[in-house]
Amino acid sequence: MTRIYFNEVVTRDGFQNEPHFVPTEDKVALIDGLSHCGFAKIEVTSFTSSKAIPMLKDAEAVMGQIERVPGVEYTVLVPNVRGAERALACRAEEWNLVMSTSETHNLANLRMSREQSFAGLREVVAQAQGHAAVNVSLSTCFGCPMEGEVAESEVLRWAGRFADLGVRGLTICDTTGMAHPRQAAAMARALQTRFAELQITFHFHNTRGMGLANVLASVDEGIHRFDASLGGLGGCPYAPGASGNICSEDTIHMLQAMGFDTGIDLQRLLTLARHLPQLVGHEVPSQVAKAGRINDLHPAPPYVEALRQGLTP
Amino acid sequence: MTRIYFNEVVTRDGFQNEPHFVPTEDKVALIDGLSHCGFAKIEVTSFTSSKAIPMLKDAEAVMGQIERVPGVEYTVLVPNVRGAERALACRAEEWNLVMSTSETHNLANLRMSREQSFAGLREVVAQAQGHAAVNVSLSTCFGCPMEGEVAESEVLRWAGRFADLGVRGLTICDTTGMAHPRQAAAMARALQTRFAELQITFHFHNTRGMGLANVLASVDEGIHRFDASLGGLGGCPYAPGASGNICSEDTIHMLQAMGFDTGIDLQRLLTLARHLPQLVGHEVPSQVAKAGRINDLHPAPPYVEALRQGLTP
Repeated sequence: MTRIYFNEVVTRDGFQNEPHFVPTEDKVALIDGLSHCGFAKIEVTSFTSSKAIPMLKDAEAVMGQIERVPGVEYTVLVPNVRGAERALACRAEEWNLVMSTSETHNLANLRMSREQSFAGLREVVAQAQGHAAVNVSLSTCFGCPMEGEVAESEVLRWAGRFADLGVRGLTICDTTGMAHPRQAAAMARALQTRFAELQITFHFHNTRGMGLANVLASVDEGIHRFDASLGGLGGCPYAPGASGNICSEDTIHMLQAMGFDTGIDLQRLLTLARHLPQLVGHEVPSQVAKAGRINDLHPAPPYVEALRQGLTP
Repeated sequence: MTRIYFNEVVTRDGFQNEPHFVPTEDKVALIDGLSHCGFAKIEVTSFTSSKAIPMLKDAEAVMGQIERVPGVEYTVLVPNVRGAERALACRAEEWNLVMSTSETHNLANLRMSREQSFAGLREVVAQAQGHAAVNVSLSTCFGCPMEGEVAESEVLRWAGRFADLGVRGLTICDTTGMAHPRQAAAMARALQTRFAELQITFHFHNTRGMGLANVLASVDEGIHRFDASLGGLGGCPYAPGASGNICSEDTIHMLQAMGFDTGIDLQRLLTLARHLPQLVGHEVPSQVAKAGRINDLHPAPPYVEALRQGLTP
């Protein structure tokens, strides 16, 4: 049975744009719950400035209080050298670095050019040496909401520059849900051909409803690592009202139904998912949390038995 | 370019469970709008008893008032001999007959056994002769919410009985969103092998988020006809809060992005989709109506240009 590895991003990417602060103890309880569901990785928090993202101002406290469950890797977003020092102090096992493959998106999101981002992140990679594994998340790999198309060659070029620095993994992000399945399949082939030795993760958004179709297309091309967010949390500011990250429980449910080994206790995960609306104060896009699994059956209405009896000769 | 044919079911399957009556003139205006979007078929209404489904009590009025646009086939649900007489009077071009492949679901939904359903529908097929083409929608082909698994052989058996009656087409329905992509692909292969001469349509629900992934898996196996509902309308009573039918605009958007010819004017369809919440009085699951198409770009924030200028040497 093919193993699929999930990185659960709800407490970082999912919570990041939520309007109301989730208390530290609730974050810790959620992460501990997720740890016991069997995730390969959990992206715990981000060491950005607490002014920029007040939701994650408790990064140190969260990292200090969570249970470190063996078999689960705890990863954190590290934006710069200052963040790296904080991540180091917290003994994060993996640092996740971020920049965009689109110049305009990088300027809009990080307020610097891609070359400036790369120069800064190169220093962070050097800092990680001997302390943490490094993953680089490349944003807008399947399209930029401002520039439009991002050439696959551009994605490969930036991936190659980070591979040359010796990073362990690359996450290819569909930041605003622009990928379609043919494109996802082509990207999967191109990356695996060129970076066979790296951990390649795909990160899809369900902004336009194509999230799980993109997962399917990627899995069929041999991609075995995905980011996903409990409840589908993590909307995009360019698509108000639309879904955010692909939903962990929906994605895992589909892959399990198809016969993949996800390592996840889905029933346990659904319990966490059903508690999420209470935690964030609004409904979440999750479908399986509402509808139940395909093998959660319903009793027939009472008249069915009567009808059936009447039919017996 | 491979052509994909869509049957738009919003005014029948989509409206059927809506709590508030949609006025006849609004139904007619919507259907006329859909006709000019380029659908291959539109399932207009149902000739069931108006006591059972009050929403569709205006079936004759709707059929009498819609514009019959050349190239669009207008299909109606015909449950029995009485419905057939009404469909005949309305000059429907195709009659859609329905029964379940699951005995329990047929008893629960139609209050008779499958054999009783088949006997009744056989008479309807005979009535259609020389007047209308016949399509049979087989419910619960990918699983029954009460019985669980429905064997593929059972689907093929019922499909075969109708094929022997000379029907033109079969719609294989995932009535409560239980299908997963591997199953959809296997079903597609089995049906096309055995019923190559028939119009084979797949009907998916997005109840557990797998709708578009199932479309992808089916298209990859050569299925070129799908039912879909504007806005994703048409929820399932077993999954309150979950999505219903796959959403026409989301499905068409994905297939167009992948390079398929759907024959649909998506921009025009999105205008109709965005008006739908007003028509039914609540939000609908559609994603592309909210997020826009992947090629609907956004302006960069004003500071981006300033940053870019500052970078010029």
